[in-house]
Amino acid sequence: MRLDHTHDAAAKSWVESANQPESAFPLQNLPFSVFRRAGTSEAFRGGVALGDYVIDLKAIAALGGLSGSAGQAVLACTEPTLNAFLALGPNAWRALRHAVFAWFSKGESLAPSAPSVDELEGCLMPQADAEYALPVQIGDYTDFYTSIDHARNIVKLLRPDGSISPNFQWMPIAYHGRVSSIGLSGQAVRRPVGQRFAAGKREPELGPCARLDYELELGIFIGVGNEQGARIPVESAEEHVFGLCLLNDWSARDIQSWESTPLGPFLAKNFATTISPWIVTMDALAPFRTAWVRPEGDPQPLEYLSMPEADDQAFDIQLEVAIETADARRSGRRPSRVSRTSFRHQYWSVAQMVAHHTIGGCNLRPGDLLGSGTISGPTALEAGALIELSRAGESPVELAGGETRAFLEDADVVVMKGWCEQPGFVSIGFGENRGEIFPAKWE
Amino acid sequence: MRLDHTHDAAAKSWVESANQPESAFPLQNLPFSVFRRAGTSEAFRGGVALGDYVIDLKAIAALGGLSGSAGQAVLACTEPTLNAFLALGPNAWRALRHAVFAWFSKGESLAPSAPSVDELEGCLMPQADAEYALPVQIGDYTDFYTSIDHARNIVKLLRPDGSISPNFQWMPIAYHGRVSSIGLSGQAVRRPVGQRFAAGKREPELGPCARLDYELELGIFIGVGNEQGARIPVESAEEHVFGLCLLNDWSARDIQSWESTPLGPFLAKNFATTISPWIVTMDALAPFRTAWVRPEGDPQPLEYLSMPEADDQAFDIQLEVAIETADARRSGRRPSRVSRTSFRHQYWSVAQMVAHHTIGGCNLRPGDLLGSGTISGPTALEAGALIELSRAGESPVELAGGETRAFLEDADVVVMKGWCEQPGFVSIGFGENRGEIFPAKWE
Repeated sequence: MRLDHTHDAAAKSWVESANQPESAFPLQNLPFSVFRRAGTSEAFRGGVALGDYVIDLKAIAALGGLSGSAGQAVLACTEPTLNAFLALGPNAWRALRHAVFAWFSKGESLAPSAPSVDELEGCLMPQADAEYALPVQIGDYTDFYTSIDHARNIVKLLRPDGSISPNFQWMPIAYHGRVSSIGLSGQAVRRPVGQRFAAGKREPELGPCARLDYELELGIFIGVGNEQGARIPVESAEEHVFGLCLLNDWSARDIQSWESTPLGPFLAKNFATTISPWIVTMDALAPFRTAWVRPEGDPQPLEYLSMPEADDQAFDIQLEVAIETADARRSGRRPSRVSRTSFRHQYWSVAQMVAHHTIGGCNLRPGDLLGSGTISGPTALEAGALIELSRAGESPVELAGGETRAFLEDADVVVMKGWCEQPGFVSIGFGENRGEIFPAKWE
Repeated sequence: MRLDHTHDAAAKSWVESANQPESAFPLQNLPFSVFRRAGTSEAFRGGVALGDYVIDLKAIAALGGLSGSAGQAVLACTEPTLNAFLALGPNAWRALRHAVFAWFSKGESLAPSAPSVDELEGCLMPQADAEYALPVQIGDYTDFYTSIDHARNIVKLLRPDGSISPNFQWMPIAYHGRVSSIGLSGQAVRRPVGQRFAAGKREPELGPCARLDYELELGIFIGVGNEQGARIPVESAEEHVFGLCLLNDWSARDIQSWESTPLGPFLAKNFATTISPWIVTMDALAPFRTAWVRPEGDPQPLEYLSMPEADDQAFDIQLEVAIETADARRSGRRPSRVSRTSFRHQYWSVAQMVAHHTIGGCNLRPGDLLGSGTISGPTALEAGALIELSRAGESPVELAGGETRAFLEDADVVVMKGWCEQPGFVSIGFGENRGEIFPAKWE
């Protein structure tokens, strides 16, 4: 996908809140979710964010006026999950994007079959009145490990003289995660109880996690999958990806270090994973592609992971994490920013993750979720988890109001944000991803 | 669950094939699946195996005559997956088991509302005419690692002076597996392609797996789940388990050894997992419970894994694996048995797996699948994978007809069988679990 008129910085919407420079959801974004009126038992249905509103795609479908791929796409979006829409593929996603863009553009001359602005206004619900659900039924969730800065930070903490695993520069490492505990922004996260083996103890013991952490990640939604036994070539892998969201891979570090040998993390990760409700499409992200160059001397990827146009495989997505403590809420202080980085530093691209995932014949299905792995940048302040920022708890992070955090405390709210900005283009946002820690159930 | 009249060895069915001593499916078994007439586009629906027949639960429901829990249960079994039935819980499962037992018993005096034998005969389809689908929609699949003999065998191969991971005797270790590639007995398994780092090479390379293996496991189907943030206590954990099936956790050993550090197996396992169609209920397995005693000197489990009645937490399920080669098929030879063991040797019980899985608040859902991990016994011939039997390929296993196998070859069919036998009880079986290896797609 390259640039087209939906990326034109001059385009404005007749929905005025979409034209405000601070809006995450201008006409050039158009991310998807499922929503309904908050507090009702209405059926969830597809929606697109525009300014302060949700465009109700079920209402849009009812207007008629869309045919062909766009018509098929909007019908699929009337369902309570977006799986059927995602399965239609990039031409359908693009057709609906273009149609919504045209109908909500200011001063666009529309086909005679297009609805009137009055009719379209009837399809808008203020976001303040909406509630959201998981946008798709997720069949499988895979969590990658693709930030070399994160990998290096962690290794330095565990073994000061160690180096990262030798496979890291040869493949996007990943493991399977838990689907049942994935929740939406606003998720209440119960501090997990588990086995820890504390230094100086003779035996492991059970207790509430004492080293609870966030991991800043992006979630990657698969649109079109592949047949079992077939593979998705790296060259066409992005056509299988619908879009991205913010993802918090909550991690219990003390449980993780005791349980993970030899088969990897299990209970340290599976108590909760939180994603943001809006899926920002790969098409909306097109202006924010950027070069990624392997450092001199690093191994070149094997052919199945080689990109012919490797110069724009990264995405410059700005990311930050803030912690809102109970004290900050009481005192009216803003959340304290702790992490700030960009997705552009990842060692492996989205396309490489998809190609590697399927090289052995594993089948992806529409709506499958991939996690990027913790996103850390090359400097200390760009780390995407507290374990890195606090040096495994030894140097607690300073927050506003004199508070500090080595790890997360009960009643902390972790707030993730993401956005893209580039001269000559309208900035777009991912919205927020929030999750609050509740005390362990433990007596 | 303890014994009741459904375990009575004297009970016979008027379906005569169920009374044959060699039948896997006597009246005392009554395992569940979903099925339809082979080669048709009929909707799948619940079925119970009895002798050479499937009892069509949709047809049973249509007869009427079942009320209360059994009525609710049989209605849930009319759906194309058993998830809704599993969610009803053990009272409903038991009520339906008892009703089917009574209706198909010879000489049982039935309530006046019960259908006639003629009507019930109309609900039978020969298994030879049936085809099956995955019995539930699996939300999450977790693979455990609970055989200490398997763990010891593997460690000895990798590091002759090594010992098993210190956490093994403290917790049932597990990792999350892939749902999308789980298939039913008869699955065509494409040999995976992947990265291997061969001894003596300077770099990893891509190619077809050269060390393809099976793993003999049991699949454990969760019936009733738990809320996120809550836990299932070990004392009541078995009431959350519906039943067991045979499971082949296909493994690409060369891919596995290169990719698994630090996050565990990924592509080495996710190309395919094969399960048998019939779920043998925990109730049917009750007569085959047996004692499991921790060896003197082993650590006692932490309280959340402690069973008050630890003396019958194991199940004596006989298991075997045979390899049917292309040459054997051509020559009319029977498959060669390679593994033969019992589930009774597992270090951690089914109840302990469930309790551990949920101790941190991870939510299980009806139809979730747990793998037991490779089931190996204490002697060399009881190993549940070729890597153990062939000592990592160095001592190929001898098959009939002069053939040998270090690892699996293309066109090999792996056949797993399971059954229970105990003096004073009627033997019950799991049926077969078959999977055939097809050549890699590779040029």
